[in-house]
Amino acid sequence: MGMTLEEIGQRAKAAENVLRTLPTGRKNKALEAAAEALLAQKDMLLAANAKDIEAAKANQMASGLVDRLLLTEDRIGQMAEGLRQIAGLDDPVGEVLSMRQRPNGLQIGQKRVPLGVIGIIYESRPNVTADAFGLCFKAGNVVILRGGRDAIHSNQAIMEALQGALEACGLPRDAIQLITDTSHETAERFMRMNGYVDVLIPRGGAGLIRTVVEKATVPVIETGTGNCHIYVDETADLDMAVEIIFNAKTQRIGVCNACESLVVHEKVKDALLPRLAARLSQKAVELRGDEGSREACSDILPASEEDWGTEYLDYILSVKTVAGIDEAIAHINRYNTGHSEAIITRDYANSRKFLDGIDAAAVYVNASTRFTDGYEFGFGAEIGISTQKLHARGPMGLKELTSVKYIIYGDGQVRP
Amino acid sequence: MGMTLEEIGQRAKAAENVLRTLPTGRKNKALEAAAEALLAQKDMLLAANAKDIEAAKANQMASGLVDRLLLTEDRIGQMAEGLRQIAGLDDPVGEVLSMRQRPNGLQIGQKRVPLGVIGIIYESRPNVTADAFGLCFKAGNVVILRGGRDAIHSNQAIMEALQGALEACGLPRDAIQLITDTSHETAERFMRMNGYVDVLIPRGGAGLIRTVVEKATVPVIETGTGNCHIYVDETADLDMAVEIIFNAKTQRIGVCNACESLVVHEKVKDALLPRLAARLSQKAVELRGDEGSREACSDILPASEEDWGTEYLDYILSVKTVAGIDEAIAHINRYNTGHSEAIITRDYANSRKFLDGIDAAAVYVNASTRFTDGYEFGFGAEIGISTQKLHARGPMGLKELTSVKYIIYGDGQVRP
Repeated sequence: MGMTLEEIGQRAKAAENVLRTLPTGRKNKALEAAAEALLAQKDMLLAANAKDIEAAKANQMASGLVDRLLLTEDRIGQMAEGLRQIAGLDDPVGEVLSMRQRPNGLQIGQKRVPLGVIGIIYESRPNVTADAFGLCFKAGNVVILRGGRDAIHSNQAIMEALQGALEACGLPRDAIQLITDTSHETAERFMRMNGYVDVLIPRGGAGLIRTVVEKATVPVIETGTGNCHIYVDETADLDMAVEIIFNAKTQRIGVCNACESLVVHEKVKDALLPRLAARLSQKAVELRGDEGSREACSDILPASEEDWGTEYLDYILSVKTVAGIDEAIAHINRYNTGHSEAIITRDYANSRKFLDGIDAAAVYVNASTRFTDGYEFGFGAEIGISTQKLHARGPMGLKELTSVKYIIYGDGQVRP
Repeated sequence: MGMTLEEIGQRAKAAENVLRTLPTGRKNKALEAAAEALLAQKDMLLAANAKDIEAAKANQMASGLVDRLLLTEDRIGQMAEGLRQIAGLDDPVGEVLSMRQRPNGLQIGQKRVPLGVIGIIYESRPNVTADAFGLCFKAGNVVILRGGRDAIHSNQAIMEALQGALEACGLPRDAIQLITDTSHETAERFMRMNGYVDVLIPRGGAGLIRTVVEKATVPVIETGTGNCHIYVDETADLDMAVEIIFNAKTQRIGVCNACESLVVHEKVKDALLPRLAARLSQKAVELRGDEGSREACSDILPASEEDWGTEYLDYILSVKTVAGIDEAIAHINRYNTGHSEAIITRDYANSRKFLDGIDAAAVYVNASTRFTDGYEFGFGAEIGISTQKLHARGPMGLKELTSVKYIIYGDGQVRP
């Protein structure tokens, strides 16, 4: 309270010097202690959360958002369990990625190190406070959090529980700090703290991410939206296609790796689209397509140009027909958001063409786009899915929260 | 001429779709053809350069800067040779970094792909035009260049020669484009071309880099300044220390990996500093030190606080005495710019402590900081040295001009 951003930044730098070389065992113990602290202090957390919920209701917050804000004993248990799982993951720090000897005898290697100080800007889910701390800390990073105004009491209570656990383990409390001044001005100054903050990761809706990209001078990892496509090729197994599309569209509707748009080879549209429409009608999915698709299936409503670029996050799917794989790739590269794209095919050459030609974080052959996820990829955790191309692309686990440095062993070499 | 930034961006995206999957052999042929074109059109290049030189002299440009701007037959030969060398390097694109099988049978791999469209903002060295094209192109990227106003005729002539070579090889001319409107307004709009440009790499002085970091919304790779330190530990071989410091300070003075500051254990200052001062006096290096250092050597002038943070790029070296390695690490981490730092020691534990504790792109034991360089590291080429922690840290070769994407092979998997 009352701490300036500069004080927060200086404290973060001091903690960074401790975390940089902290052994894995001590990090894991602190994560276990943090999990314990959340459970032990659940009454304090619930009381703090009750204040936020009361204020939210007084401000007529929509009930879905109130639910996102709500802490329960169960949800506190999940936060604690999340920290324990992170303790069980491999520590990426310290791995030497390569070590080569140069002709002059210098040995030059690249070693994985923490990024340093990570800034997280997020909205009203208090569980992000514990999750983000756990992931950043395990990778040796200090975290500065700027959560939403609505969750301020909950976030502060969670932070205090975590700080207490750190202190009890002989570690700097400032490995996690929260910016309690939730004004936009302070958020914008936070985004410009070059020299104190090494990277900003915004977690939230498209508006938040746009603002951070627009205002930040600190490097940003953009975790973005997903206008994901499935292309059904001429040779596709149509049973497989129907089930993959059904899964990718309806298994969970509001997520970035859900399928939003179908691209269909014109030679299979008559065989595919009526069956697919029947299957999707089980979940009342609305189909919006081009003329070619509507000729094949009368249930399809007309699509407008705008549909091709829309991430519905809803029971709606757009349908575009194409004359072949080149047109499919061009269409997808034009309208996608660089997230996840799939082809359903039996053709070897087309599978390769699609994998190489599509510009996206994850490109699938014969599988649902819903697998783009740190847990499904086997990382054990995830801080977000990067849809940009710098540093990290796709699901980001612990490894993506690290940097590298060159280490060079010499015995007196000078440059001639 | 007269093309808007949007047109340039659209042409870049169209060329990107061709370069994304261009085989290495065709890229190498185009680079050889580009080298040929520079040599074949040298009269045209020299004539264009003469216009820039004439204007520079009319504007009273300092002679050092005029020299940087000057093209000669020799320098054109070097540019051509540079492109040929790049043709000879391994292509990083297409490498699969890992491929694992998940319990559900999905095979998930990470493949190296081009970044896409790279923007380079640079000052008055026309050779950057050919160099930057060569490196970006070999890694499958389209490049949009914004060079300095002073070199506009030279840059345009070089670009036209390169575009002609691309066209003769059946490749899109727009793989290299130059922004010919050199106004600041256009440069600033270029820095905000998200959706068209994937990354900006500024090449030039500290002022240029600061401006780009400040104004850009496109991700930036910061190539920065080097306030590099050498720490002489209690157990150092002092002969080795003197020769390494002499090399790192004087072998080349105006470069970012030159040593700017010496940190000396107080127990060796009396033995080291007078000898070192004598050796450095051969190159008339001015020493500025703290009290402890001046007690050991009367040739050392007093340093001010400002000296610790200064990258002199000159025959000046600051000298700080410390009581031990922890103080040395703390001092270096406070004042360094994250570039290159070295320890001279015979002590095993201190060598490890220094390698782990120092926060910099390159950390050396018993070698000169002057080795931080893409050629010396064995990359065969270099587009700059990153002093930030995201995406690339230290010398950046072809690999650092790529991104990755996940490729996933399935046989019908859906998410339960």
